[in-house]
Amino acid sequence: MSEIVPSDPSGSLVERLDLPPVGNGPLDGMTFTVKDNIDVAGHRTSYGSLAWRDAHPAPVHNAVCVDQLLSAGARCVGKVVADEFTYSLDGESQFFGTPRNAKAPERVPGGSSSGSAASVANGLAHFSIGTDSGGSIRVPASLCGLWGMRPSLHRISEAGVLPFMPSVSTVGVLADRFEHLDAAARVLLRSGSRAVAPLRRLLLLTDALDVSDRAVQEQASAALRRIADKAGVPLESVRFSEIAGEDLPLGDCNVKALRDMQTAEFQSTIGNWIETAKPTLGTTFTLAYGNVRRFDRVAALDSLVLCERFFEAINAFLPTGVMICFPTTPVIAPLKGTLTTLKNVLDFYDRTMTITAFSGVGRLPEISAPLLTIDGCPVGLSFAAGHYQDEFLLASARQILGVAA
Amino acid sequence: MSEIVPSDPSGSLVERLDLPPVGNGPLDGMTFTVKDNIDVAGHRTSYGSLAWRDAHPAPVHNAVCVDQLLSAGARCVGKVVADEFTYSLDGESQFFGTPRNAKAPERVPGGSSSGSAASVANGLAHFSIGTDSGGSIRVPASLCGLWGMRPSLHRISEAGVLPFMPSVSTVGVLADRFEHLDAAARVLLRSGSRAVAPLRRLLLLTDALDVSDRAVQEQASAALRRIADKAGVPLESVRFSEIAGEDLPLGDCNVKALRDMQTAEFQSTIGNWIETAKPTLGTTFTLAYGNVRRFDRVAALDSLVLCERFFEAINAFLPTGVMICFPTTPVIAPLKGTLTTLKNVLDFYDRTMTITAFSGVGRLPEISAPLLTIDGCPVGLSFAAGHYQDEFLLASARQILGVAA
Repeated sequence: MSEIVPSDPSGSLVERLDLPPVGNGPLDGMTFTVKDNIDVAGHRTSYGSLAWRDAHPAPVHNAVCVDQLLSAGARCVGKVVADEFTYSLDGESQFFGTPRNAKAPERVPGGSSSGSAASVANGLAHFSIGTDSGGSIRVPASLCGLWGMRPSLHRISEAGVLPFMPSVSTVGVLADRFEHLDAAARVLLRSGSRAVAPLRRLLLLTDALDVSDRAVQEQASAALRRIADKAGVPLESVRFSEIAGEDLPLGDCNVKALRDMQTAEFQSTIGNWIETAKPTLGTTFTLAYGNVRRFDRVAALDSLVLCERFFEAINAFLPTGVMICFPTTPVIAPLKGTLTTLKNVLDFYDRTMTITAFSGVGRLPEISAPLLTIDGCPVGLSFAAGHYQDEFLLASARQILGVAA
Repeated sequence: MSEIVPSDPSGSLVERLDLPPVGNGPLDGMTFTVKDNIDVAGHRTSYGSLAWRDAHPAPVHNAVCVDQLLSAGARCVGKVVADEFTYSLDGESQFFGTPRNAKAPERVPGGSSSGSAASVANGLAHFSIGTDSGGSIRVPASLCGLWGMRPSLHRISEAGVLPFMPSVSTVGVLADRFEHLDAAARVLLRSGSRAVAPLRRLLLLTDALDVSDRAVQEQASAALRRIADKAGVPLESVRFSEIAGEDLPLGDCNVKALRDMQTAEFQSTIGNWIETAKPTLGTTFTLAYGNVRRFDRVAALDSLVLCERFFEAINAFLPTGVMICFPTTPVIAPLKGTLTTLKNVLDFYDRTMTITAFSGVGRLPEISAPLLTIDGCPVGLSFAAGHYQDEFLLASARQILGVAA
């Protein structure tokens, strides 16, 4: 806990920075923070781990995505906390503390882009860049009441972003307002003036409601009906079994596909480093990594085949013009310190990843919008589109959410 | 030159291995080698650099792709030479020697998957896994007279494959026969029983002929006419300007798009390591790296935007059912020791990458088929399809090339 930046009530900063823009553009006047698994030249990247930070020299180049933002007019104001090896959805770091959930201070911010969310929600920056594999942008966006976008897999350059799970991990954005999300995302996506199809269909993935708390179900359904009515687009219910073309539960995206891909790839990236460098690991991560170490990757190769089959099926169902929506998380943020029992951990992770794994295996762009409030705490409503339909998703979200251009 | 394996006349082996299969499947009875930037558990990965090898411990896990092959019945018989940091198309390594081009022994094998090509062409294995960013599978396949496939960007897991250029680099296959290429690729692609559209159109990218040697132009045109006639498919000529929708030369895919993306990403991956570890570098790589070091990534961000625009345009032109073809390389293999003058280097690289960058920016799957012979030396003929249309490409190549099922 020695790493906290003084006089940062958000608890989000690993290091306060002031990197001025190197050009002018659509991000003029905006400030941003950088999750601490993304390189900033001259500053060590911790990856959420003190051991990793101390074992690796400072990069001499910014990550490509950082240079894109500075060139488009934005100013970088800090490096912010990430969960250890970004392998968590909690946002409680043994090494860097728990960044403050501005709208629910007694609750976790969600992770692993915990500092990204807290820095924006506490007013330190207009937006933050983070990474998302199993939900690490979408979950903190949902739990902190922010806009968050996980773009299509590999639409944004990952050069200078620490390796994690190459078949799953993306660079993305959290922001206080849609306008900031949209502007930053378009710079990173290198959208140019791409034309997009009009929105034709709005689908509601009902399996995601089924695993959500009653209040989330009710508010999400009501909000989506209002949104669809106002936008003049019919809201159609769809089940994952219709998308998959066979009688499978949505949870299979997680437990029979994405999770095994994640674990196999994690072994080959961080796993190799941990096994040879023998670093000091945090308590929570040590438990999670035990599962990685024991994982039989050869026995799980069928899951990689299923990932590919789900990808095909989901994208065949989501041609351009079609948007699918669901609650971003099934719950509000857990209270701090409660993700310590196996029961609580499994309940939070299994239900959350049942939803987040859908865009993961689909390689979909997904935007979490801060539209629901339950017991005074935020929950996000997510909108997703087919792989590489990022610009269609941004334009359609703007249209149906009535966000000013 | 101390690293050569004794009694290996192919000059391709970094290390002889005998890793038996861990399952049965479509690769039963086949042997393969592994390019030395892909992890094999318990063996150091050199990345083509002695300094890198000595600075990094042996991985404890195989790369995911290696486990896929072993699980499907194949046996791994060796780790094979890669060009330094896989940043070359030459195949002449100062540290590991020049693997033997079996069909043109006085000529280079091409790189950077030089050992992959030589191990297969000299009969050590049925196929080899390599990597391709700017042509590192396709070029040695062409110059050594082998089948080679660069799959769609990110279709094959890159976990355990050394980082290079995340927006460009792919894992792929070189093989002695189409059947072996097809079987290995389908395992790695996790194709399952995916249905594919029938071939409707066969396009010839004429700009690629324009930059090719006269003999390559003539043979490629004649071979494609024969193939199209026999398959009963019309051969339509197309220019890059029609694909791009504006009057641009094919070379812009290289010099105004892919090359800058490669250089910017290389700075953030290997560049950071070189600048901080200060390793001993080879002479040829030192010259190439000088360009990387001097590169102004901020001034080149427009190239990244162009990459995205070309990707869109190329794929809008290549829906499923459409295949595009061109010579893999504009020349036969250069004589060994001749890629030492700036003139020779520029002539080889600029013309070759004018062609190879097309699939690079398009993120296309491309198969190089060993169909041409000029002055007794092999040149490949390439067939490409839209992004993620790998199974369509494999099926269409089998159909029009008359390869038995």
